[in-house]
Amino acid sequence: MAFRVVVYGGSGNLGRSLITLFRKNNWEVTSVGTRQNIEATHNIIVSNDDSLEVQGKEVMQNVSSILNGEKYDAILCVAGGFSMGNLAKGDFLESVDLMVKKILNTALIASKMSTVNLKDGGLLMLTGVAGLQPTPVAKAAVHHLFDSIVSKGSGLPKNAKSIAILPGTIDTSDNRKGMPNADFSQWIPLDLLSQ
Amino acid sequence: MAFRVVVYGGSGNLGRSLITLFRKNNWEVTSVGTRQNIEATHNIIVSNDDSLEVQGKEVMQNVSSILNGEKYDAILCVAGGFSMGNLAKGDFLESVDLMVKKILNTALIASKMSTVNLKDGGLLMLTGVAGLQPTPVAKAAVHHLFDSIVSKGSGLPKNAKSIAILPGTIDTSDNRKGMPNADFSQWIPLDLLSQ
Repeated sequence: MAFRVVVYGGSGNLGRSLITLFRKNNWEVTSVGTRQNIEATHNIIVSNDDSLEVQGKEVMQNVSSILNGEKYDAILCVAGGFSMGNLAKGDFLESVDLMVKKILNTALIASKMSTVNLKDGGLLMLTGVAGLQPTPVAKAAVHHLFDSIVSKGSGLPKNAKSIAILPGTIDTSDNRKGMPNADFSQWIPLDLLSQ
Repeated sequence: MAFRVVVYGGSGNLGRSLITLFRKNNWEVTSVGTRQNIEATHNIIVSNDDSLEVQGKEVMQNVSSILNGEKYDAILCVAGGFSMGNLAKGDFLESVDLMVKKILNTALIASKMSTVNLKDGGLLMLTGVAGLQPTPVAKAAVHHLFDSIVSKGSGLPKNAKSIAILPGTIDTSDNRKGMPNADFSQWIPLDLLSQ
């Protein structure tokens, strides 16, 4: 029987890297992302314009029909986003709103999904950050969400394991382009993070 | 010349109490809330259905026409909300979404407003919480927002002061009804918090 995993953020850098690894090991992979991941077994395409409730319902319904009564061995949320600037920036509210949608809402839906579609003893993983503003406003909420997930009475399946990863800067081509003068040796290789 | 203050959450328990106090001291008060505050000098009525961007634009435009070139001496955000339950709760996503709108979005708009409409040396106040789930998912983000506001280069006016209040349970009639067996003596009197 194949293991099953959902990768929320499956069309992003970290998500694509994870899916390659899982497919190599013959896992059945559901990708949730804004673009299709051609390596994934199943794709659920979502939009960054969706409200939490709309995307939540859509993803949960799709997952339920993909699983057809089965459950996931692992639910990994690696959806993310990045935005610079302080309060005085003209589009500060729009930036935070987008970060909340990309970072907090995806973590909330993955967590909610774990109460319904994760096996007893399965793994839930969320992604936090060590970083910059206004990204951390949304990430701070994920950190808190994680605190409440690992506490008693969280609603997660029996013996389910939860981990949060808190990467510094990940070594991707986009990040190298955006920060050409940074010390790349301090960055986290993408394939290391996937292992 | 009268002092000017905006109370975001002016139709809530804490907001109403603050507005009574400010009006007694002849401040010109702008209330932002879901209902009219008849004591306030000006009212901006908002809806909990608004997105961050919609409510942000509406409030900023209204504030700008009320101020007519003047600035506020203080911007106080005491908007809040409360919701119980864990991840397994059927309407968990809807609850968090409402808490984000009531708690995080209001704090973000008040903070953004401070970069435009607060006097040099003025006061920005946000409200955090010591509390329960899923309210804290939104509150955690406010705590982080506050951290970034008090750090250098936040975009706030010169010498502006910022405080965050972190109340336990506030002694209101709604809270007494909701928790009839609690020890009210440990609760924070509403008028104490307003002073």
